Amino acid sequence: MLSPNLSAIESTTVVIANLSPRVECGKFPTKRVVGERLRVEADIFKDGHDQVKAVVGWRNLDDGHPHEVEMLPLENDRWAAELSFTETGRYEISVSAWSDDFETWLHDFERRLAGEPEDLPIEVEQCRVILNRAALRAARMRASQDAEAIEAVTARLMQTDPAHALDLMASAGTRELLSRWPDRSLQTASDEKIELTVEPVRAQFSAWYEFFPRSATGCGERHGTFRDCLPRIEDARDMGFDIVYFPPIHPIGVTHRKGKNNTTTCEPGDVGSPWAIGAETGGHRSIEPALGNFEDFRWLVEESRARGIEIALDFAINCSPDHPYVRDHPEWFFQRPDGSIRYAENPPKKYQDIYPINFHCMEWETLWRELVDVVRFWIDQGVHIFRVDNPHTKPVSFWHYLIGEIHKDHPHVIFLSEAFTKPKMMQALAKVGFTQSYTYFTWRESKHELIEYVEELTQGPMREYFRGNFWPNTPDILPHHLQNQGPAIFKIRAALAALLSSSWGMYSGYEFCEGAPLPGREEYLDSEKYQIATRDWNAPGSIKGFITRLNELRQSQPALRQYANIAFVPADNDQILCFRKWSDDRENQILVVVNLDSHNRQESNVHLPLEAMGLSAEHEFSVSDLLHEVTYTWRDSTNFVSLDPHGKLVHVFLVSQGSGNSL
Amino acid sequence: MLSPNLSAIESTTVVIANLSPRVECGKFPTKRVVGERLRVEADIFKDGHDQVKAVVGWRNLDDGHPHEVEMLPLENDRWAAELSFTETGRYEISVSAWSDDFETWLHDFERRLAGEPEDLPIEVEQCRVILNRAALRAARMRASQDAEAIEAVTARLMQTDPAHALDLMASAGTRELLSRWPDRSLQTASDEKIELTVEPVRAQFSAWYEFFPRSATGCGERHGTFRDCLPRIEDARDMGFDIVYFPPIHPIGVTHRKGKNNTTTCEPGDVGSPWAIGAETGGHRSIEPALGNFEDFRWLVEESRARGIEIALDFAINCSPDHPYVRDHPEWFFQRPDGSIRYAENPPKKYQDIYPINFHCMEWETLWRELVDVVRFWIDQGVHIFRVDNPHTKPVSFWHYLIGEIHKDHPHVIFLSEAFTKPKMMQALAKVGFTQSYTYFTWRESKHELIEYVEELTQGPMREYFRGNFWPNTPDILPHHLQNQGPAIFKIRAALAALLSSSWGMYSGYEFCEGAPLPGREEYLDSEKYQIATRDWNAPGSIKGFITRLNELRQSQPALRQYANIAFVPADNDQILCFRKWSDDRENQILVVVNLDSHNRQESNVHLPLEAMGLSAEHEFSVSDLLHEVTYTWRDSTNFVSLDPHGKLVHVFLVSQGSGNSL
Repeated sequence: MLSPNLSAIESTTVVIANLSPRVECGKFPTKRVVGERLRVEADIFKDGHDQVKAVVGWRNLDDGHPHEVEMLPLENDRWAAELSFTETGRYEISVSAWSDDFETWLHDFERRLAGEPEDLPIEVEQCRVILNRAALRAARMRASQDAEAIEAVTARLMQTDPAHALDLMASAGTRELLSRWPDRSLQTASDEKIELTVEPVRAQFSAWYEFFPRSATGCGERHGTFRDCLPRIEDARDMGFDIVYFPPIHPIGVTHRKGKNNTTTCEPGDVGSPWAIGAETGGHRSIEPALGNFEDFRWLVEESRARGIEIALDFAINCSPDHPYVRDHPEWFFQRPDGSIRYAENPPKKYQDIYPINFHCMEWETLWRELVDVVRFWIDQGVHIFRVDNPHTKPVSFWHYLIGEIHKDHPHVIFLSEAFTKPKMMQALAKVGFTQSYTYFTWRESKHELIEYVEELTQGPMREYFRGNFWPNTPDILPHHLQNQGPAIFKIRAALAALLSSSWGMYSGYEFCEGAPLPGREEYLDSEKYQIATRDWNAPGSIKGFITRLNELRQSQPALRQYANIAFVPADNDQILCFRKWSDDRENQILVVVNLDSHNRQESNVHLPLEAMGLSAEHEFSVSDLLHEVTYTWRDSTNFVSLDPHGKLVHVFLVSQGSGNSL
Repeated sequence: MLSPNLSAIESTTVVIANLSPRVECGKFPTKRVVGERLRVEADIFKDGHDQVKAVVGWRNLDDGHPHEVEMLPLENDRWAAELSFTETGRYEISVSAWSDDFETWLHDFERRLAGEPEDLPIEVEQCRVILNRAALRAARMRASQDAEAIEAVTARLMQTDPAHALDLMASAGTRELLSRWPDRSLQTASDEKIELTVEPVRAQFSAWYEFFPRSATGCGERHGTFRDCLPRIEDARDMGFDIVYFPPIHPIGVTHRKGKNNTTTCEPGDVGSPWAIGAETGGHRSIEPALGNFEDFRWLVEESRARGIEIALDFAINCSPDHPYVRDHPEWFFQRPDGSIRYAENPPKKYQDIYPINFHCMEWETLWRELVDVVRFWIDQGVHIFRVDNPHTKPVSFWHYLIGEIHKDHPHVIFLSEAFTKPKMMQALAKVGFTQSYTYFTWRESKHELIEYVEELTQGPMREYFRGNFWPNTPDILPHHLQNQGPAIFKIRAALAALLSSSWGMYSGYEFCEGAPLPGREEYLDSEKYQIATRDWNAPGSIKGFITRLNELRQSQPALRQYANIAFVPADNDQILCFRKWSDDRENQILVVVNLDSHNRQESNVHLPLEAMGLSAEHEFSVSDLLHEVTYTWRDSTNFVSLDPHGKLVHVFLVSQGSGNSL
């Protein structure tokens, strides 16, 4: 890059650089949801001493109509403006800046007053020139009222002693009037742009409940159907969830079908893993006959939606040896030198019930298009949310393509990435379009680990594109801390998931504190992946009430619907985790205190940052525990808390008095 | 950005991202000098478990010939390779990566040995397929020796028991052979590129000496000429400088000419400021007649060059009211409403001897081209180095244009930015092409300030494009710490400038410890800007010997020629600054210890990072003071130093024993 072409730099009178927030230099879009604040910043400066003005310009790429918001200078030539969007869609955001002739004149004229009086009249004349041009611009835009107002100011200026001209010109009214008609003929527009995707609130704020439809009755003998699922949907709704996610509902392969507890020998009657997709009765566009038919499925989707619940499906690109693709498209799989199809393996482990797909096969285009069509097919059945199985074992470029294709016609479709893998792959999947992602929360136990991880997610670059969905358990993961434990730890982990992140989810059985592991493993004994669960869905002693209350608070408290508005609060005791969240408008402020110790009472002083919370040490303030309906009156920054795993183990305080400037 | 076009992503099998070092996302080139190391890094990863290989590819944009260097993985999917360049020029650097079929086979096969033996033969057959394809690639490229070698390996593989195939295939020889013929048909090339400018060593390593030619004789009565300058050039050469910089040499305006000590009334005989350029006798393309003519100037440039000295000129875009431009191009200036030309001012201050240029006037193109032509004109006179006066008061885009235009034909021309202004403007000027920049060093006095500033320059993003030139004084700046002081502080500040940065400079008089200020100001009394200096150039008591020795060490020690290879070393005493520098090959390692206190002896323990320095606490090592020709034998990391402002006030230790892995 030698010098730019002269004509290309004609109007770069101002330097505009380091526009933020951008993801990988603008290679991927920045994400927000409807109503969420976006703080746009840029370095803006120019040569000399002119007074600079700057605006953020934005337009929805569909309607193209331009809007502008004024930027204000921070420190060290950094400028900022805050925006939020009422409509979903794709937006382009840029920054423009110019040297403001009127403000520059004002600034200089004020300083000239300290100089020689005989220099003033010609500067007043200069101002008249500036005013005349502004009036002309207003008149040209048919803003005759403004044009006349500027002319009136000019007339008064001409009648004023130059020594007193400043009072007239520096008045708030005059400056506001002139600010509407700046000379922007030499303005600079940033060459950097922010590409923004504004998604529905649900992309960020969601509560997921996962269950296996075949276990809907809880009777291990009988295979549940979609018709059996409605009571479970209603349970989930009653607990406050708004998304119910089903493992794959397609026909299950019989060749090398896995038996109970993942054994390689399958007994008669074993139902197999729903992730081994494809059989005589069809593949990814079919329904396992034992669950019902398409009419049943669409009925369930509609009945659920009527109850405020969206059904999410699993999109798992796994094929059993019996999948129709194997017969119709052997070219989509890996061949061994003997012509046989290579099964999945992680040597020396073999997964003979699954054939992996060759995404870079010669016929990759037809393959990729087919998989997009599969997703479209289920969208046509009323499904708008997909949990994607192991996306990190497929090319990132494939997901970029698939999600992009789907979002062209269905921008509101949500994809949850089940990529429990290395950090950069998880980040890459979020960048290319996944709406939400599973996280390492499941294994973050100590106060230090939780703080470090949540800060990484919400306070660094990931905040702009990665939305962590916190799950205390999944059918694949029964973490050690939940194994054979009483309800306290289940409540603690649910509270952490539901309150630390704006999106959380749990896999059924959690509400009953199910925790029997395969010995020495982080997996469930008698996993539902391989058999139908026997479960009393109305068993006493569940923690449904606690979960319900958590979800109620998430709904009623705007602060808890925010993802990134979180800050940790120092607590002296390492078993006490304290954090605060706030709504974008700072009207709603929540302080959460959790006892991380599921066995012992823990007490601590917590040290509130009063100023950041908009509180004054001069006045009392109240903290109302919304979980336990108790209100305390606090005054100082340091306050005492005591939490008992067998009683109150979490405080969710609503903080009132003072409006807070918590950012 | 919805999904990319299918054909555009066909071959993105590997994710390559966050290529570094790039300046503002690649908007501006990264800079290096000939022989300087460049460490290229990128995030590289792919789906699944394939073994990935990656290379940095680079080509000189002039010859276009491609080169590659293998990258190695660091942690967390980050990869790196180190390069350096023997030729100046512009380079494009990118990264390519692919899944390596042979290495993947090896990796899997090793793990398969733990599985069932009957699975092995077909995997050996798979290897044969991989080998055959590699041999074919070698043959196609007429590398028949390699092709035959691969065929020989294949033959041996076929004769080997599959259970022992690993030994054969995993041998270093086989892997090296196969690594030459990888299947890169599905490789990914990074869409990000590093644009690199490789400049001459002098762009980074230089010692500048500034003097006013009109003061060359030191006789305040007589105006010096270019012919008088040769003894001064030889003085500078004797002190070890390699660039001599002259303030403007053009005719000086008479209208509103400034008198001695910047008074607005000029006495008869006052010579005026050389920065008030332009008179009856010409402007930027002319020489002040009192200095001589073009023949004299070219003679001096040639005589200097024969002595190893480059003459640098000042490029100051200032016009006196008498400049020919004012008559010929009034449209290039700012007009006031009465038609008069606006003089420079910073209200209420006025600079009536200067007319500022309107870079965005209607005729800006002819103006900008003319200024480029002025620089070309002086290049034609043999000048290859320009110190640019106050570039921050002209548009950044103008410098981008001017430097780019000049570098098209004269890539080796050096521009030093005299922008003593806000950080982001200084950075922007370096990004658009300035080779070197003045810095805040002049005012950084305390140990904390020096460490913080040098680390900002050399350890952060600025390191890639900004080269700080450290000046203890300039004709405009006599910092308080140098005012009316003895030689100790002059030695200290010279040592800091010469050793902390690879480029430094001083303004004449410094060697004589001149320090008389205008009372209460940071300016020189009887400044040479406004009068001819009276100075005995051979006065006794100068610190010429010390300066000479500093410059000799800079020449003889490769570590001191490096800009960014610097790390500070903890010293217990706040008046003792300790740092180390090293050559890129780590063969040369220098430890500098400076007493910042010019009045008192200071003693301290310094704590060497032995491991980083390639030293072992098990063995003794020697530190030889190259300034004072004394060698100490040290062993531990903690060592005692004692420095006396009236004796040894700086140690420049050559550290020997152990080769050092100091990065």
